[in-house]
Amino acid sequence: MSDLGPRLAIGVDIGGTKIAGGVVDEEGRVLDRERRDTPGADVTDTESVIVEVVTALAQRNAVVAVGIGAAGWIANDRATVLFSPHLAWRHEPLHESLADRLAMPLIVENDANAAAWAEYRFGAAVGQAVVVCVTLGTGIGGGLVIGGVVYRGAYGIACEYGHMTVVPDGRQCACGNRGCLEMYASGRALARDARELAAESPAAAGTLIRLAGSPDAITGPVVTAAAAAGDPVALSICTTMGRWLGRGLANLAAVIDPSMFVIGGGVSVAGDLLLRPAREEFAHSLTGRGFRPVAAVELAAHGPDAGLIGAADLARRHALSR
Amino acid sequence: MSDLGPRLAIGVDIGGTKIAGGVVDEEGRVLDRERRDTPGADVTDTESVIVEVVTALAQRNAVVAVGIGAAGWIANDRATVLFSPHLAWRHEPLHESLADRLAMPLIVENDANAAAWAEYRFGAAVGQAVVVCVTLGTGIGGGLVIGGVVYRGAYGIACEYGHMTVVPDGRQCACGNRGCLEMYASGRALARDARELAAESPAAAGTLIRLAGSPDAITGPVVTAAAAAGDPVALSICTTMGRWLGRGLANLAAVIDPSMFVIGGGVSVAGDLLLRPAREEFAHSLTGRGFRPVAAVELAAHGPDAGLIGAADLARRHALSR
Repeated sequence: MSDLGPRLAIGVDIGGTKIAGGVVDEEGRVLDRERRDTPGADVTDTESVIVEVVTALAQRNAVVAVGIGAAGWIANDRATVLFSPHLAWRHEPLHESLADRLAMPLIVENDANAAAWAEYRFGAAVGQAVVVCVTLGTGIGGGLVIGGVVYRGAYGIACEYGHMTVVPDGRQCACGNRGCLEMYASGRALARDARELAAESPAAAGTLIRLAGSPDAITGPVVTAAAAAGDPVALSICTTMGRWLGRGLANLAAVIDPSMFVIGGGVSVAGDLLLRPAREEFAHSLTGRGFRPVAAVELAAHGPDAGLIGAADLARRHALSR
Repeated sequence: MSDLGPRLAIGVDIGGTKIAGGVVDEEGRVLDRERRDTPGADVTDTESVIVEVVTALAQRNAVVAVGIGAAGWIANDRATVLFSPHLAWRHEPLHESLADRLAMPLIVENDANAAAWAEYRFGAAVGQAVVVCVTLGTGIGGGLVIGGVVYRGAYGIACEYGHMTVVPDGRQCACGNRGCLEMYASGRALARDARELAAESPAAAGTLIRLAGSPDAITGPVVTAAAAAGDPVALSICTTMGRWLGRGLANLAAVIDPSMFVIGGGVSVAGDLLLRPAREEFAHSLTGRGFRPVAAVELAAHGPDAGLIGAADLARRHALSR
């Protein structure tokens, strides 16, 4: 089929606020894009917007497949969304709902699995034997690529790294448990710690409050921006979060023993402000340190595009393997 | 080769106190045995006893391979022991040391990986898609079989489930960290909790002290025996440990999403005294409960033989695949 030129595929990343689509070539480059607002929590509306995005891209490009990346639990059939945190999908046969409306091969994939795949294929982790990808957004997304294969678990819901309990009876998590890692290492944790400090001491949090406009308006991006500008309070909050991330990585190394960790997602724009304390705490907390190789901890290469790039590439491979 | 009859292999389980060898057939049955004391911490002496055990068994049986299962970190070459907790092996080229003295194909395998393999092939977890095996001895050994393949990690040292940190700044562990799971869910934890209680209140721990002879002589087996006999204090200690085990399983389910957990090792003789609270706490702590299948939690089928059965079977498969 090489005489047909590069086989393009569409990747769609369903976020809580935006639905981003892209046409991706075989080298992981994004050649064309479409973007819409996510229409609230309505399932039918969301699916209609996905169809809109895909149809628009497919009209302008010859594509062989489409991959939908969504936050949530996708069953191992890669067709059913068992549960999605910010959408109304509950045991939703997404593949079935979309297949009739999109005349091309389709897969549904967890967004963090897709991002991990993008980093393994085209990004920070090319050629790595075992890659753990941690996507730091509002919460934590997780992916794992073992020997060039996305690991999904027995039921499709592995790699929920953010829901390892790291503090018994700790902070209440939306999942129902307390003390989940994502309550300490995520954009939500950054914002919460900063707001709590601002409530305790508006003076100490002066820069953060000024940047945000008010204590309640402090967000994760405000904290990372203030830290990047040298605000010592914001730096301290980032360091605390980085250390929790490092402890989480040490737990994952005990279980998975990867050759590389890749840290992506919106919060990873903090770069070394986060990675330096994370690496230090990881090395300090790694069981058996001194008797084992230490996995690399690297920043993701594809930023916010990783999800759609990975979804597209997985869809193309799935379509061409049939 | 079927005209040669069943291909037998030798499995050797190197424990801190005993070296147990067995001849294992293709259905996982142990047909012949040899057993010696582990000669202290001396590397050369230990290797000589391994050779003795294997030689004795090989003289009486036509075997095609030998598998050595050892507690510790075995590099992915399945030849080098990076580190062993109760033996003096540190970057020990065990395969090389033994190969000249044993004229047959040889592999070295982590004992908990071997046990997991035995349960997958011949025991509680036959046909399971993803099996997490937790071996509760003095500490915790861990194994993982994914799609019929032992998962070893990038460097051969995955599945150290006992060294997930579950309590920040918790109990000091021999690995150098604090708060490792095996400080709360292991034979050592059972004995320690019972001794601490006996020191605080000899009256409350009366049955345990009577069974053991003195407070300091209380061991894990004493606690499980007292619990089986209905001693409420021992039952409570087993329940506490079972709950910690359940929390550990919930963390592992978040990361690995197995179809089954198998609980083996010496402490698992406590059976339902341990498994009932473990299952309850697992179901109670599982992230996303209600939206996902719940993995089974089952007792291991092969008890103390699992390590040598698995090591033998892995060695046979390795030898016959070359």
